[in-house]
Amino acid sequence: MQNDDAHIEKLLKAKIRDIPDYPKPGIMFRDITPMLKDPSAFGACIDAISNRLSDTKFDYVVGIEARGFIIGAAVANKMGKGFVPVRKKGKLPYKTIATDYQLEYGAQSVEMHEDAVEKGSSVVIIDDLLATGGTAAAASFLIKSAGAQVRGYAFVVELDGLNGRTRLGNVPVTALVRY
Amino acid sequence: MQNDDAHIEKLLKAKIRDIPDYPKPGIMFRDITPMLKDPSAFGACIDAISNRLSDTKFDYVVGIEARGFIIGAAVANKMGKGFVPVRKKGKLPYKTIATDYQLEYGAQSVEMHEDAVEKGSSVVIIDDLLATGGTAAAASFLIKSAGAQVRGYAFVVELDGLNGRTRLGNVPVTALVRY
Repeated sequence: MQNDDAHIEKLLKAKIRDIPDYPKPGIMFRDITPMLKDPSAFGACIDAISNRLSDTKFDYVVGIEARGFIIGAAVANKMGKGFVPVRKKGKLPYKTIATDYQLEYGAQSVEMHEDAVEKGSSVVIIDDLLATGGTAAAASFLIKSAGAQVRGYAFVVELDGLNGRTRLGNVPVTALVRY
Repeated sequence: MQNDDAHIEKLLKAKIRDIPDYPKPGIMFRDITPMLKDPSAFGACIDAISNRLSDTKFDYVVGIEARGFIIGAAVANKMGKGFVPVRKKGKLPYKTIATDYQLEYGAQSVEMHEDAVEKGSSVVIIDDLLATGGTAAAASFLIKSAGAQVRGYAFVVELDGLNGRTRLGNVPVTALVRY
């Protein structure tokens, strides 16, 4: 199991590109697009997340706009689950619930359809990157506001130094690659 | 085959919600979020697109931000292909090529990483909706600018009255649901 984890981390890191000073000076951006375009790396990424969630009972994958849509939708389809988008403000056509939060590069607001998840249902929240945890915590707030439960979080990349996990409460968090 | 097509169209239409006057008065928005959250409808949608592309030879699925990420990434993973995002301007971290175009609700600019597809490679372009075809044609322009070939287009929904297909040239276009 630990060997598998090390193997997938090495495989994916080889396909993640470092972009210095993006989107702001001093930030090292981890660009997953070379990984996404590589069929075996992308497939291994989706398989690994699905495997790590295989013992978690949940109804929906919640994917956070926009890279979280790529990872989340593929995992949802692979696992036979429904997919629920959490979007930036003003992008969803039906009645929404919204929340504001601070993130690494400024303030942000995210929304979810008010009927996106049923009271008593359960979800896993997926995004490409766990940085400060602000976006994931905001998505969790929306899910709980709708009366549903967050059973786990999954990310491709986790930036260890920002301690994002501390904002996600007592819920299992998995990430395939750490920096 | 025609029976299958009619079956999938009926199944998906039952899960697509009509939102009048969104995003502008007079526009009937076709909201696929109830379909996405339904595991069997979402699964059937991805299976149907994958089946219709099964005889097409291509290297990458190109998904158009943002709902095209949801459909495109799931299809790419299902078919064992790589995924390439075409994004709104200013969202991609590496060097990009861009193009401007007109769409139903105003002007827009889309970008792709300059190394997203190799010269001589081939792609299928996927989005949730074919309306005027402006966005898909812009994505196609980017692919061709990079020296790659567009072998097909796939959409969940096609709005027949807007004749989007006429802008996509002599390339196979498939859509699961028509209005």
